Amino acid sequence: MNKENTIKVLREEMQSAFVRVLLKHGFDESRATECAAVFTDNSIDGVYTHGVNRFPGFVQHIRKGFIKINAKPSFKHGFGSIEQWDGNLGPGPLNAIKATDRAVDLAQKNGIGCIALSNTNHWMRGGYYGWRAAKKNCVLIAWTNTIANMPAWKAIDKRLGNNPLVVALPFNEEAIVLDIAMSQFSYGMLEMQLMKNEKLPVDGGFDKKGNLTDDPSAIIDSGRLLPAGYWKGAGLALLLDILSAMLSGGSATWEITEQSVEYGVSQIFICIDINKLGKDNSMTLIVSNIIKDYHRSVPAEEKEKIIYPGERVLTTRQRNLQDGIPVFRSVWESILKL
Amino acid sequence: MNKENTIKVLREEMQSAFVRVLLKHGFDESRATECAAVFTDNSIDGVYTHGVNRFPGFVQHIRKGFIKINAKPSFKHGFGSIEQWDGNLGPGPLNAIKATDRAVDLAQKNGIGCIALSNTNHWMRGGYYGWRAAKKNCVLIAWTNTIANMPAWKAIDKRLGNNPLVVALPFNEEAIVLDIAMSQFSYGMLEMQLMKNEKLPVDGGFDKKGNLTDDPSAIIDSGRLLPAGYWKGAGLALLLDILSAMLSGGSATWEITEQSVEYGVSQIFICIDINKLGKDNSMTLIVSNIIKDYHRSVPAEEKEKIIYPGERVLTTRQRNLQDGIPVFRSVWESILKL
Repeated sequence: MNKENTIKVLREEMQSAFVRVLLKHGFDESRATECAAVFTDNSIDGVYTHGVNRFPGFVQHIRKGFIKINAKPSFKHGFGSIEQWDGNLGPGPLNAIKATDRAVDLAQKNGIGCIALSNTNHWMRGGYYGWRAAKKNCVLIAWTNTIANMPAWKAIDKRLGNNPLVVALPFNEEAIVLDIAMSQFSYGMLEMQLMKNEKLPVDGGFDKKGNLTDDPSAIIDSGRLLPAGYWKGAGLALLLDILSAMLSGGSATWEITEQSVEYGVSQIFICIDINKLGKDNSMTLIVSNIIKDYHRSVPAEEKEKIIYPGERVLTTRQRNLQDGIPVFRSVWESILKL
Repeated sequence: MNKENTIKVLREEMQSAFVRVLLKHGFDESRATECAAVFTDNSIDGVYTHGVNRFPGFVQHIRKGFIKINAKPSFKHGFGSIEQWDGNLGPGPLNAIKATDRAVDLAQKNGIGCIALSNTNHWMRGGYYGWRAAKKNCVLIAWTNTIANMPAWKAIDKRLGNNPLVVALPFNEEAIVLDIAMSQFSYGMLEMQLMKNEKLPVDGGFDKKGNLTDDPSAIIDSGRLLPAGYWKGAGLALLLDILSAMLSGGSATWEITEQSVEYGVSQIFICIDINKLGKDNSMTLIVSNIIKDYHRSVPAEEKEKIIYPGERVLTTRQRNLQDGIPVFRSVWESILKL
């Protein structure tokens, strides 16, 4: 971020600003606090795109009635260790927290548990729920579907969502958290590179002639985002959508797309309680030995450090907690006016 | 395949040839039949690399003692709907069948079930178990770790396996089956393109100078296979390895790599019984509506057909069942001599 355009906001200050806005829009105090914490913590962890920068859009969605602020998930159907819940169009982060916690409960009872959540809203940063489950000694495998924003492999029209997938596990009192969308880059990333007048680090889509390109504006023009791993990410995106809709009985990407606005999405949360599988220290040893070997990787460029998914978060979190969260001045001003 | 170098082998002929070889190597009749069927069916489905072409290597592994032909998986530990089994170094396909069937049992009892299998061997084609679980009305999410064959993102030495992931579900009396390794291409694919003197369809790795390339020989020289989706496939490969080893208590990629030979791998099988979630016809409708929309995709090139993972298999299966399975003459001759 350009220093002149950014300010630093302390955690408490950001949290209270969010709470104030949510209260003003009718949230009760405990839900305002919990929901604000998701946006604040995501920003603390450096995921600004799904934290502070996204907050104004979240409020817009509330004002337009796409998010029902008082709605809570309701139990639809269950069998053993899998349950279907209806999100009733409540705030995505609150619904996803509830679903994660319920999947953890089921895992604690049966080793593994699954919540299929229909009719919910954008969960912001999927990784948040991975860190949360990991604190309760659980593995989390979770994903969401989205509005169509990417063509199938070898197609030109958008029929797939980029359907982010989270895989997380506890590690060293913290967590290893992978949080990947099925497109190689998000539209947010394309727009950011465009603003900076920079190319993408690798090809991110096709131009209008059908050639692979690292030029963000050519990709925005064609609308042809590249699935991560070409046919592989496209295939996985399709399967994740099918499973979300089928297991939850909720909307699929094509139905969300027909609405024109992304709301009422479907999500899956699978938890495994690792305490049920062996002695805590043997698990820890297995993971730390893998990470030790991984860290021995020889970097292609001398100064590069080979890090695991979520490793960088720890440093960012520390720094942002201490120095405050860097925020675009314009974004912060718009939030204060909400 | 070049027509002059290939012959067609009928299903029954292939199956009996495999059974004969396995019996000769000490398998009992029912295990020989079941194991042979995996190699035959994979070939019928067009996955020759993990069917007929792989059979001689499988027999080599038996002869060298890496595969214990009589070993069966044994129960280690269970809690609710998750169980750890020891594969006892038995034949990978037989162990994986047992693990799949047991995960289906658990799913039928509890909605969802998970088997973590340590100390097993190469399962050949992961998709096989997806088709199998789908026949029993289950979703399958399964993966295996492998020997290290791919560097971490931004690294040059191989520390990650390509750890294939399978996601499958029942559809139209058949299945949708995604079976993807975490490298963009396998070494087998590189070698095949090299033999044909052809480039890869997209970049598949780095050359020795660290540039992305579609030249198979440059990638074989550098040993730097490209993870599918760059950092995304690399991250997922790491997490899949950690989960396989941690949940099963088995070997991680680094330990398999220290052995120099790939045996004693770790695998995870998660099943969800969709009959427990709603009426069969509502599930079917959700999936067929998604596929209907997906098939409406506009192809970039006029004659291209946009197909879902596993769709092509149905045609190939039909053709190979009718006309026989195309096999390299040299491969078939070597099998007849085993």
